[in-house]
Amino acid sequence: MGQEFLKLFEERSFPVKSLKLLASERSVGKTLIFKGQPVTIELATEESVKGIDIVFFSAGATRSRALIPAAIESGAIAIDNSSAFRMEEGVPLVVPEVNPEKLKSDSRLFPVANCTAIILTVAVAPLKKLGKIDRLIVSTYQSASGGGASMMQLLEDETKAVVAGEVPPPSKLNTRYAFNLFSHNTPINEFGYNEEEAKVIEESRKILGMPDLKINVTCVRVPILRAHTETVTVEFDGPAPSEEAVREALASAAGVRVIDDRTANRFPTPLDASGQGDVLVGRIRQDVSNPNAISMLITGDQLLKGAALNAVQIAEEVLKLNPSTVA
Amino acid sequence: MGQEFLKLFEERSFPVKSLKLLASERSVGKTLIFKGQPVTIELATEESVKGIDIVFFSAGATRSRALIPAAIESGAIAIDNSSAFRMEEGVPLVVPEVNPEKLKSDSRLFPVANCTAIILTVAVAPLKKLGKIDRLIVSTYQSASGGGASMMQLLEDETKAVVAGEVPPPSKLNTRYAFNLFSHNTPINEFGYNEEEAKVIEESRKILGMPDLKINVTCVRVPILRAHTETVTVEFDGPAPSEEAVREALASAAGVRVIDDRTANRFPTPLDASGQGDVLVGRIRQDVSNPNAISMLITGDQLLKGAALNAVQIAEEVLKLNPSTVA
Repeated sequence: MGQEFLKLFEERSFPVKSLKLLASERSVGKTLIFKGQPVTIELATEESVKGIDIVFFSAGATRSRALIPAAIESGAIAIDNSSAFRMEEGVPLVVPEVNPEKLKSDSRLFPVANCTAIILTVAVAPLKKLGKIDRLIVSTYQSASGGGASMMQLLEDETKAVVAGEVPPPSKLNTRYAFNLFSHNTPINEFGYNEEEAKVIEESRKILGMPDLKINVTCVRVPILRAHTETVTVEFDGPAPSEEAVREALASAAGVRVIDDRTANRFPTPLDASGQGDVLVGRIRQDVSNPNAISMLITGDQLLKGAALNAVQIAEEVLKLNPSTVA
Repeated sequence: MGQEFLKLFEERSFPVKSLKLLASERSVGKTLIFKGQPVTIELATEESVKGIDIVFFSAGATRSRALIPAAIESGAIAIDNSSAFRMEEGVPLVVPEVNPEKLKSDSRLFPVANCTAIILTVAVAPLKKLGKIDRLIVSTYQSASGGGASMMQLLEDETKAVVAGEVPPPSKLNTRYAFNLFSHNTPINEFGYNEEEAKVIEESRKILGMPDLKINVTCVRVPILRAHTETVTVEFDGPAPSEEAVREALASAAGVRVIDDRTANRFPTPLDASGQGDVLVGRIRQDVSNPNAISMLITGDQLLKGAALNAVQIAEEVLKLNPSTVA
């Protein structure tokens, strides 16, 4: 994830005057390359996060809770990839293509939403102008990258073993991952929904500004490395807009690219999305089971639009809106 | 597929007096082992399919159309894994756990339904007694085996290349399959649904005996070898039955096994289903977006319950019902 940030800073000419890399003890002393120069990783502490203009946090909710207050107190703007503060009242949850107005906030804390929710809301938001959306029905095909570098490595290691005719050793998962899929392995709440599904529901509502939006979602991890795919049915409060209207609204939306060639049978795949900033949308069609609904297939790079890119976009917009907040 | 049939005949002590293996020219002269003896494959022709009691066809719709009339005319019962005759008026489409009453037919032709529809209907049928089902919303995670041995080989070959750091050569697919997924690569109809989705809709209606059942389905191929998974939301025409009632109806249904352990986060995976005759069901829960609906995750072995096993089960039941039809 750190690598993805550095690559984005370079590619997007993010105005970096000086750069500090902070991590846990495990990584202290290692170096990453930024603009051709090695930068040594230092220990992340309440002291070392002070005196920085913009701090990007991407080390889980526990570390964000421990370090972000100190960073903000010292004057920083904190952009947080963890779930720690996303649902806090008054804290804006921004996907720049969807709710940029929330950037005009005096908050110095901008959480980055759950990756599945970001990809979903980027594809759904452009349809809001076509009618009142009543309900979303979503099934996900989530990649290993959502579980971090260790899960990507696990998938690769197990797959190597299986194609070599070997039985991979047991892992931290309760099932094999190679050539297999499993219901998202986060705790299940009293309603039978896992934590990932609960995040998709509450965070999508907050991002879309639709607190009463009904959402049915099933989150599944598939043996794919780095982009998330979702099947999405959008039910409107009345007859659904035409396929043409949906396609046009999506094609002209920021952050969306339509790949929807029925003749060539060419629709978005996670491999198409990998390394891309846009959310790809296809299989756009009227729901034959409900005249009020349309269905589509969407996919987006979990590490980019689902995380690092969204974080950097927020920072860029914050800088544009408040050039003075940052020295 | 031939291998799966022979294995099932042995395992289930199917009353085979004599066995003929028929195939296209490509396979003529090869041998398969049945009960320890080699059986040589002969050419399938209108002549060679005559004089057999039960003929299992599993060579695609074109060959079924060409050969089945001759087999039936000569007195055989034909069990057909292709789509050729499934939707013909008067031809029973039987999933023995779902609509066994259709076996009491004077038809000598019994098509085996589409694998995705079989797995779906086995899991949905037990819920019919709990209320009037109005609509199904299905997303599939289909394995390579549905595309035949060549697609399984393609997935393995490409995966070997990718884990070795190589770029796999282009294939008959228009996208890479290893560590990727794609919308089911069958032709898209005027409504934007592919052939697989259209089969799931019309065949599920016929099997369930519910010609007006509304079905929303998106069929996706995932990089998994041999079992199909489906997320299924079942909408009733009124308040949904309780989770307990659903779990009980499924647990006591023939051909279904419930794996639904929220505490251990253990739900069905396609690897669990591989080599199993049952359809596995889990993630059973109230749909939080609709009080009339429940959601679940199901998976079944595409080659067994989705094809060969269903065919052999039909043959067994036909033999039980009409011991005299077969010499």
